[in-house]
Amino acid sequence: MNLEKELQNKIDLLTKPHGSLGLLERTALKYGMIKNSLCPKLPENKKVFVFSGDHGITESGTSAYPKEVTVQMVTNFLNGGAAINVFSKHNNAEVFIVDAGVDYDFEPHKNLIVKKVGYGTKNFTKEKAMSLSDAEKSIKFGRDIASDAIKNGGDLFAIGDMGIGNTATATAICCAAGIPIDSIIDIGTVINSDTLSKKRELIKNAVEFHSPFENPIDIISKVGSYCIGEMIGFMLECTDQKVPFVTDGYPVTSAAFIAYKINPEVKKYMFAGHKSAVKGHEVLLNLLEAEPLLNLGMRLGEGTGAVLSFSIIEAAVKMLNNMASFESAGISTGDEL
Amino acid sequence: MNLEKELQNKIDLLTKPHGSLGLLERTALKYGMIKNSLCPKLPENKKVFVFSGDHGITESGTSAYPKEVTVQMVTNFLNGGAAINVFSKHNNAEVFIVDAGVDYDFEPHKNLIVKKVGYGTKNFTKEKAMSLSDAEKSIKFGRDIASDAIKNGGDLFAIGDMGIGNTATATAICCAAGIPIDSIIDIGTVINSDTLSKKRELIKNAVEFHSPFENPIDIISKVGSYCIGEMIGFMLECTDQKVPFVTDGYPVTSAAFIAYKINPEVKKYMFAGHKSAVKGHEVLLNLLEAEPLLNLGMRLGEGTGAVLSFSIIEAAVKMLNNMASFESAGISTGDEL
Repeated sequence: MNLEKELQNKIDLLTKPHGSLGLLERTALKYGMIKNSLCPKLPENKKVFVFSGDHGITESGTSAYPKEVTVQMVTNFLNGGAAINVFSKHNNAEVFIVDAGVDYDFEPHKNLIVKKVGYGTKNFTKEKAMSLSDAEKSIKFGRDIASDAIKNGGDLFAIGDMGIGNTATATAICCAAGIPIDSIIDIGTVINSDTLSKKRELIKNAVEFHSPFENPIDIISKVGSYCIGEMIGFMLECTDQKVPFVTDGYPVTSAAFIAYKINPEVKKYMFAGHKSAVKGHEVLLNLLEAEPLLNLGMRLGEGTGAVLSFSIIEAAVKMLNNMASFESAGISTGDEL
Repeated sequence: MNLEKELQNKIDLLTKPHGSLGLLERTALKYGMIKNSLCPKLPENKKVFVFSGDHGITESGTSAYPKEVTVQMVTNFLNGGAAINVFSKHNNAEVFIVDAGVDYDFEPHKNLIVKKVGYGTKNFTKEKAMSLSDAEKSIKFGRDIASDAIKNGGDLFAIGDMGIGNTATATAICCAAGIPIDSIIDIGTVINSDTLSKKRELIKNAVEFHSPFENPIDIISKVGSYCIGEMIGFMLECTDQKVPFVTDGYPVTSAAFIAYKINPEVKKYMFAGHKSAVKGHEVLLNLLEAEPLLNLGMRLGEGTGAVLSFSIIEAAVKMLNNMASFESAGISTGDEL
């Protein structure tokens, strides 16, 4: 019997009707497969990475907040006052802020990882967001961050993002990868319908302007961002090293979609932390055949949905390891009926 | 400004776009209202109550498991091997098993609360499930359990149920309260479509046989159960004493629906732990205007969905208490756009 069957068999013999713990059972199975064990160790070193950067597209006015908010929010993260700090502490995970390309130099901080590809991308409605070599560099930086985190003992990661303009960028890379714009365009955080129409036109025209796209690196270079590139690299490295990671909302999942195009194995190591209120998110989750662990109507980003789901993943692992079986508890299975 | 407005205002000034934490924000608001505070204390003494009992309807063969499983599962709870034990420990809550009317005498155990109304209800397809005075006794017992738990410091409760035949009973009380059977009939845990048709006919005929129903106590007496009565009493007492409780799946929510018919204030103190895979559950949640905190496709009962949601409720309270405001963090609110 292979491990997958053995895990399923073990889950089926726990003291509950078959399948009655729903997604928890599938989560336990996936976790056991990743850890290659019928009794996988609980995550002991949980880390959250919030990839931050500036996006040239913000000069086109597609966002509700001015670009300066990226710097202010990173400062808020480092001071411990943001939602991601509160929820990470709640679930016993350490938060690292990655400066992938903020247009600002932060003071050193123990939770700040500086992997700056540049000081903000160019405005992709007018030119390539970055050079091909910067796109490649962003992937490499993302891989380096994951590799270091794994070396330091990290065994479960949440991936989040912060950067004014990131939903516009996420939409552009998805369109460039062939997803129809009207299935995914949405208001991001909070913009009105006029701004939304403008955002739609800008992204649609930009994707046409930069077409055709030769490969994922070409997509990142033309309409991506430093954060997106680094998140893709991070996921690819986790996949190579067989370490589970949890995605957050729409921008992070757009990165997962591109990572999956590069290496379909990505799906095996990815847990979808939640389904956000952003319209395009569900489309991406379906394409990745990922079942979200939470569905709280959130649309904040930062990794908040990802880190909140840690509690559910851990519950699933404990179910697998700690519940009694019908046999050990001496309970009728109902098979006699 | 009243407390509700003050709470909403506080939530809106936290460092995140308005409404971007979705249901977490509404959960924090509700919790603050219950605790009557802008900075409500986190729950410090979380308890889970699993109401167990036998149902005469099981002799009609509507369930996948034989009646004996009720006793076996209660034993499993007391031995710590069931899903509810694992998940309660995960979220730092103590589990109590209530013997509301199991057809068996258990050995004393520190986590067993014996509030037995009888040794299993009668088969309501043939006669009243219990006398009116037993129905009243079940409500009183439920109130006593809540009252004791609150006296012992309990400040957040999960309510679960265990009893072969409980979904059939839940369906009967809902129909008796006016909900059309076809909107809620479902397979409970795991039965085939022939058994389902039989279950539908049995319940439909029983409800017709016992009609009209004069009031909620009459419903409990004719087609209810000891567990259902005690859960209703428990919720009514929590409501009177303003202590929050979390509902689990379909049978518990059917009890909440009847409790709400008795006292509409019940809604203010109730959190819906999850939406289960049982068809009628969503119908009941909608009638109660309750938003489920989790949606994992579970259909186990025992309080598992309720206790897993504790982590989300606590995260919501921490959001309210521990996040920085735009002002304290010196962040642009975007109002200038």
